[in-house]
Amino acid sequence: MAGNAIVGQSGGPTSVINSSLAGVFQACQMRGAEHVFGMLHGIQGLLEEKICDLSSRLDSFLDIELLKRTPSSFLGSCRYKLPDISADEAVYEKIFEILKKHDIRWFFYIGGNDSMDTICKLSEYGRQVGSPIRFMGVPKTIDNDLDLTDHTPGYGSAAKYIGVVMKEIIRDATVYGNNFVTIVEIMGRNAGWLTAAAALARGEDCEGVDLICLPELPFHTDRFLAKVEKMQKDHPSIVIAVSEGVKLPDGRFVCELSDDERFVDAFGHKSLTGTARYLSNLVAKNLPTRTRSVELSILQRCAAHVSSRTDITEAYQVGGAAAKAAFEGETGKMVALKRLSNDPYQCTTCLVNISDVANIEKKVPLEWINEARTDMLPPFLTYARPLIQAELTPIYINGLTQHIVEE
Amino acid sequence: MAGNAIVGQSGGPTSVINSSLAGVFQACQMRGAEHVFGMLHGIQGLLEEKICDLSSRLDSFLDIELLKRTPSSFLGSCRYKLPDISADEAVYEKIFEILKKHDIRWFFYIGGNDSMDTICKLSEYGRQVGSPIRFMGVPKTIDNDLDLTDHTPGYGSAAKYIGVVMKEIIRDATVYGNNFVTIVEIMGRNAGWLTAAAALARGEDCEGVDLICLPELPFHTDRFLAKVEKMQKDHPSIVIAVSEGVKLPDGRFVCELSDDERFVDAFGHKSLTGTARYLSNLVAKNLPTRTRSVELSILQRCAAHVSSRTDITEAYQVGGAAAKAAFEGETGKMVALKRLSNDPYQCTTCLVNISDVANIEKKVPLEWINEARTDMLPPFLTYARPLIQAELTPIYINGLTQHIVEE
Repeated sequence: MAGNAIVGQSGGPTSVINSSLAGVFQACQMRGAEHVFGMLHGIQGLLEEKICDLSSRLDSFLDIELLKRTPSSFLGSCRYKLPDISADEAVYEKIFEILKKHDIRWFFYIGGNDSMDTICKLSEYGRQVGSPIRFMGVPKTIDNDLDLTDHTPGYGSAAKYIGVVMKEIIRDATVYGNNFVTIVEIMGRNAGWLTAAAALARGEDCEGVDLICLPELPFHTDRFLAKVEKMQKDHPSIVIAVSEGVKLPDGRFVCELSDDERFVDAFGHKSLTGTARYLSNLVAKNLPTRTRSVELSILQRCAAHVSSRTDITEAYQVGGAAAKAAFEGETGKMVALKRLSNDPYQCTTCLVNISDVANIEKKVPLEWINEARTDMLPPFLTYARPLIQAELTPIYINGLTQHIVEE
Repeated sequence: MAGNAIVGQSGGPTSVINSSLAGVFQACQMRGAEHVFGMLHGIQGLLEEKICDLSSRLDSFLDIELLKRTPSSFLGSCRYKLPDISADEAVYEKIFEILKKHDIRWFFYIGGNDSMDTICKLSEYGRQVGSPIRFMGVPKTIDNDLDLTDHTPGYGSAAKYIGVVMKEIIRDATVYGNNFVTIVEIMGRNAGWLTAAAALARGEDCEGVDLICLPELPFHTDRFLAKVEKMQKDHPSIVIAVSEGVKLPDGRFVCELSDDERFVDAFGHKSLTGTARYLSNLVAKNLPTRTRSVELSILQRCAAHVSSRTDITEAYQVGGAAAKAAFEGETGKMVALKRLSNDPYQCTTCLVNISDVANIEKKVPLEWINEARTDMLPPFLTYARPLIQAELTPIYINGLTQHIVEE
C-alpha cells in the first residue's frame, strides 16, 4: 500500500491540537506511509503547495513529547472555507492535482466545524471523480460544540485551565473582604461549554463562582443587577463567569451595548469582546460596589502549561484512530469520542458520517442549568469532571516551558 | 522568653505571600512563641481585634505545603495606611493596647511599600513609648519596586508566569501567518520590572516579543506606530508587551486617552487599565492590520500554579529571617535579599533600616534598555533569569490545584 499521507490543522488554536497531529503522524508512519506531509496553514497553504515533510522535522521521541506540550497549530492554521463544489469546481481540480502530484493516498484535517465542512466537500468531490484518496476529519475545538461526539479534544484542557484560574481569581478577589464584583469573560460565541466549566472551581477549598451566565439563555440586564445586589447582601466579594456571547432578549450581543469602537474592526469583522467590561461598568454605575473585569482571552485556548492529560491522551487517540480508519479504507468520516462509563471514566473512539457533523453546533442542555439560572447542576459536573483529570507535566527548561516549532 | 507573635499581610496579592507567612509561622514556633496569631485583613483587622490563632489552623506539614501553593493573602489583606504619629496618636495607643492585651512580643507585617511604612511608624511609636515589642517588615510585591533589596519575593513567580504565557501567546498569535498585532498589557504603574520580564520569552524555541514598552520612558504614539509599521514589513505577526503605566511626554497615562468611562470609578479611584485596548484600536485605525489586546490582569499576580520555586523558597526564607532577627532583639528593620553571585546563583538575607526603604520606588535602570527602546539588554536577563528557575509542583486534586483557606 505505497503512497503518502498529508495532514493539516485549521481554525482556532487549542492546547492539544498538536497531540492529534502526533497521533496521525505516528499511526501513518507505523502503517507504512512513505512520507507524512504537513500542510502549512491548512488548505489555504496546500493550494499554494506550501507543504513540509513531517518525518524529517519530527525525528525523535523527545520531539513527539514536545509536540504534545506545544500549544497552537504546529503547522499553522487558516480560516479558509471551501466554496460549494457546484459554485467553483476549479479549486477542487487544483487541490486534487496537487494531491496527485505528491502521491497522497490519505488526507487528514484537524479542526472544528468549518474543517469538517472541508472534509465533507473534499470527500464528496473525491467520490464524484472516483479518487482513491481517503479523507478523514479529526475533531478539535475548545468550544466543545461539535455534534455526535461526547466531547471534543481541546475542551478538557480549556475547562481545566478555567477551573484552575477561577480558583485563583476567587482567592484574589476576596482578599480585601469588602464590596467587590469581579466579572470574568469566557470564550464561546454560541455554546456555553467553557463558561459552564467555571462551575468546576467549587470544592472543599473554594466557595466557587457566584453566578454563571451562558449564551444559551437570554440575558436580562435588570435581572442581572438584581441578582448581584441580592448576592452581595450575603457576602461582599462576588465572582461572576459570563460568556462573551451572551445576548439580550432582542438578539443583540451584550457587548454591542458597549460604546467601544472596537466592536467592528477595519475589515468589518465583529469582535465579541468587552462583555465583562460593559457589565462591570454597568454594575459600578448602579450598585455601591467596586468592580473589575477580567478577560481570559486567548490564554484559555493556548495555556498548554496547564493542560489535561485525559484531553491530551484522547487528542492523540482520535488522531491515531483517524489514520487507522483511513488505512482501512474509510473516507468522509470524522472520528468521534464515545463515553462508555463515568465511574470509572472510560471513553473510546468511533466513526461518524462527516455530513452529519459539519455545520451543526451542539449547545449546553438547558436541563443542566439550575432553575434560578445562576449555576450548573450535578449532571454537568458529572459530564465535565472526568475531562480535566490528570496532568502532563510540562518540560521546563531554564525556568520556562519548552515547545517545538516548525522551522 | 514567653509571649506571643502576630503576623499580618497587606497590599496586593502575590503567588508567594503565603510562603513568607509559612516562614514567619514556623520560625516563631521553633523559637518558642507560645502562640502565633494572624491579623485578619492586616492592620485594619487588628484595629477591630480580628485575629486568629495560626497554630490551630496550620497543624500539619501538609497544611504548610498547601499554604506555599495558595495564592493571595491567606489572612486577607487591606490597603490601610497609618496616619502620622503626630496627626493621630489615638490609633497608635489603640493598637498597642490590643497588642499588650494579647501579650504580643513580636510583630511581623508582610507587604510592599505601604506596609513598610506601617512598620516604620509602629516601630518609631514603640521606641517613643518604650515598648518591648519588636517590629519587622517582610517584603512582598510582584512589582519588584522596593529599594535596598536585590529583588522582592513575588516578582520571580510573576516574571515566570509572564515568560510562560508570552511564549504561549506568541505561538497563538503567529498561527495564521497574516498581518496581526497582539498587544499584551502588563502590571506595574511606575516601574517596568514585570513588563521587562516579557523579554525572557525569547529562546531557541521562541522568537520572543517584538517590542517592550516600559513606564520608565515617555511613550510617543507616533513613534510607536512607526515602529509597528516597520516591524510588520519583516514579519506580519507582531507581539508587543506594554506596561499599564506608560505615559505620554506630557505626563498623562496612555490609558487616559481612551474614552472608557471606567478610568475613574464611582469612588474616584483611577484604574490603570485599557492601555493595550487603546493602542490596539490606534494601530487598527492607522495600519492595514488586524489587532488584538490581551490584559494579563490579576492572573499575573495570583497564578500560583506556575510559580517559581526559587521565589517560593526565598519568600519562605525572608519570613524565617524576620522571625530570627525579631527574636534576637531587632526592630524597625526589613529583611532584604542580597545576591552573592549569578553563576551559580546564590542569594542570602540581610537587614535594612525600614526608614530607608519605606515609600521609595525602585525603577528599571535605563541602561538595561536597548538604544532603539524596543527590548531589554543582557544585564536584565542576567538579573531576572535566576529568579524564575525551578518549579514547586502544584498539588492537583480531582483535576484542579488544591489550596488551603482560612476558615
